[in-house]
Amino acid sequence: MDVDQRTCRTNTEEEEKAHFKRILNALQAYKNDSMTRLSRTRHHFSQLPAHQHALLTQLAYPSQLDRLAELIDQNHQVITEMIADAASMFLNVDPDPELVPRGKSSQVSTRPEDIEKIHSTLKQFARDWSQEGAKERQQAYMPIIEELQEAFPEKRGVKILVPGAGLGRLAFDIAQAGFDCQGNEFSLFMLFASNFVLNKCRTVECYTIYPWIHNFTNNMSMQDMGQAVSFPDVNPNEIPDEVNFSMTAGDFLDVYSDPEYRESQDCVATCFFLDCANNILDFIELIHKILKPGGRWINLGPLLYHFSDIPGEFSIEPSYDIVKGAIQSSGFEFLKEKTGVKANYTQNVQSMLQYEYRCVFFHCQKTAK
Amino acid sequence: MDVDQRTCRTNTEEEEKAHFKRILNALQAYKNDSMTRLSRTRHHFSQLPAHQHALLTQLAYPSQLDRLAELIDQNHQVITEMIADAASMFLNVDPDPELVPRGKSSQVSTRPEDIEKIHSTLKQFARDWSQEGAKERQQAYMPIIEELQEAFPEKRGVKILVPGAGLGRLAFDIAQAGFDCQGNEFSLFMLFASNFVLNKCRTVECYTIYPWIHNFTNNMSMQDMGQAVSFPDVNPNEIPDEVNFSMTAGDFLDVYSDPEYRESQDCVATCFFLDCANNILDFIELIHKILKPGGRWINLGPLLYHFSDIPGEFSIEPSYDIVKGAIQSSGFEFLKEKTGVKANYTQNVQSMLQYEYRCVFFHCQKTAK
Repeated sequence: MDVDQRTCRTNTEEEEKAHFKRILNALQAYKNDSMTRLSRTRHHFSQLPAHQHALLTQLAYPSQLDRLAELIDQNHQVITEMIADAASMFLNVDPDPELVPRGKSSQVSTRPEDIEKIHSTLKQFARDWSQEGAKERQQAYMPIIEELQEAFPEKRGVKILVPGAGLGRLAFDIAQAGFDCQGNEFSLFMLFASNFVLNKCRTVECYTIYPWIHNFTNNMSMQDMGQAVSFPDVNPNEIPDEVNFSMTAGDFLDVYSDPEYRESQDCVATCFFLDCANNILDFIELIHKILKPGGRWINLGPLLYHFSDIPGEFSIEPSYDIVKGAIQSSGFEFLKEKTGVKANYTQNVQSMLQYEYRCVFFHCQKTAK
Repeated sequence: MDVDQRTCRTNTEEEEKAHFKRILNALQAYKNDSMTRLSRTRHHFSQLPAHQHALLTQLAYPSQLDRLAELIDQNHQVITEMIADAASMFLNVDPDPELVPRGKSSQVSTRPEDIEKIHSTLKQFARDWSQEGAKERQQAYMPIIEELQEAFPEKRGVKILVPGAGLGRLAFDIAQAGFDCQGNEFSLFMLFASNFVLNKCRTVECYTIYPWIHNFTNNMSMQDMGQAVSFPDVNPNEIPDEVNFSMTAGDFLDVYSDPEYRESQDCVATCFFLDCANNILDFIELIHKILKPGGRWINLGPLLYHFSDIPGEFSIEPSYDIVKGAIQSSGFEFLKEKTGVKANYTQNVQSMLQYEYRCVFFHCQKTAK
């Protein structure tokens, strides 16, 4: 799979390199940061009164914490392989010595939001590329793929774009089904991970990670925390020869504003993506612009509005009825619409706390505005 | 209903007064803080390009934001009534001029966690004291009340303690069923609110609030955000004459460590409470201590461990299998146990994001240790 090497619209080359270094540092610091969090619990355990300390020891609490430390190390080894050739992966430059992983973390402390994103990336491997993720893919990807197959029975040469492609499974499944498919992703965490799966994993279940070890709450047993997840569940190289499948790196609004993309797509498929916008109207307008006349837009997802409470970030948060009105006013006709479509997102099914989205699914057609 | 006036174990009178003032200030600042959050969205709306601004205006986005401002004001009026006699409510002192609400917020900025707790308190009114909360009470309170009725068919004079009583509905329902019941609560937000419902609401549905207006995400329509909830759904004064019903204010570990409570209770009923502990073993030990020989402990809840990632707070997070072992080792025999008991907690049923707990329900009996 090719990775296109576009840059983010608002960043200079210098800023982009700094961002790249920050993410790489965060990934290199994974083991250290995870052990620091575990140490907090171990330290509090050590401070318990003697009789409580003895009781929890007898109940194997400290040995379960030791087991978590081993699993952190196993995740660390997979992450290390994932970023082994990071320096030359996306930048249009020779490997920069500053960017070559040094096998140890830098002195810079990792931002909490980056630690969170590493945990999300681990869970995303499970969602997109493991047997354990099959249920979630059935909920969120199958309705889109079935709709595509109904709308475009010819498949061959039909161009589908998947913005917010994450680890690339929806785009891969669309290509597997015989469509030309391009995924687009902005997050470097996701890009490192999708590059790893799509270009480095040559056999089924060649890696094992432990995505739930960072969740210290709502566990029925500590074995549940340590569930192993192997990936990929399919060989990512098995794409039909005649199919074009690619990924682009960069901000959707930046990459696809390029005139070459105007009226270029038969269909845009968005899945848990629309609410990643600072301004959802910009997404709606750009999707309209890049579709061919009569082109289709298929969407499934909630309206979480990721920037809703992030200081310094632009955010508008219209409810679905207003979003629907804006889509219609922007030159789309609704062909199909379902509300209350149940879908989980990187849910640990063993947890005592379950999240479930009631998504909107719709299929629109581009009309004259 | 009487409110006992104990103080928190770790605080001096001075610290306690400062804490009281902080919470009162936060409640007085509710309108101002809520309007500030709304202004953020309004400001971003005003910055949209002209054609997008016109489109959202046509779709009634700004008028829906104006409606939210009105509903903030209505919540503010209920909160103002709630804290009207706050100064003399819990402290063993004459009304302190410093503590008398001045009808306007102070210059001190409200802590984000206190803003969050005010939102939780509004939702708690819906959970505990509205028709809309009936489903959640059916899920979480009914199994406990039914178990109590089976274990203590005589009811009269049987003493039940409910730690973490919140807005007091479970304790009230237990007293309604004919048991003597004492609720205990630490949070001043909850204490202001429970005092308001239990001692100031004389008729059914005499107040109306809008608990969901602070959730800007995952809304199907902005009308959903503005759902009205009236309370109380029952008259809180209708308790059988022969029943003793009271609330104590203060930290469970502090209040009930007092020797007068040793072997004083026939039953402790904990509901979404056990995981509020910094050290869950302390809770288990104290529950054992205050129960009469052969006394019962009935519990329903998850293991969210509220202090798990709060900087500076002590926290251990054993999974349920270890907690169960600790309960057994501490001198309890399990009479009944169910896992995977589904329960929502202050869930907006209209939201595109639903949370559901898979709780543990158990009924234990105190044995010799």
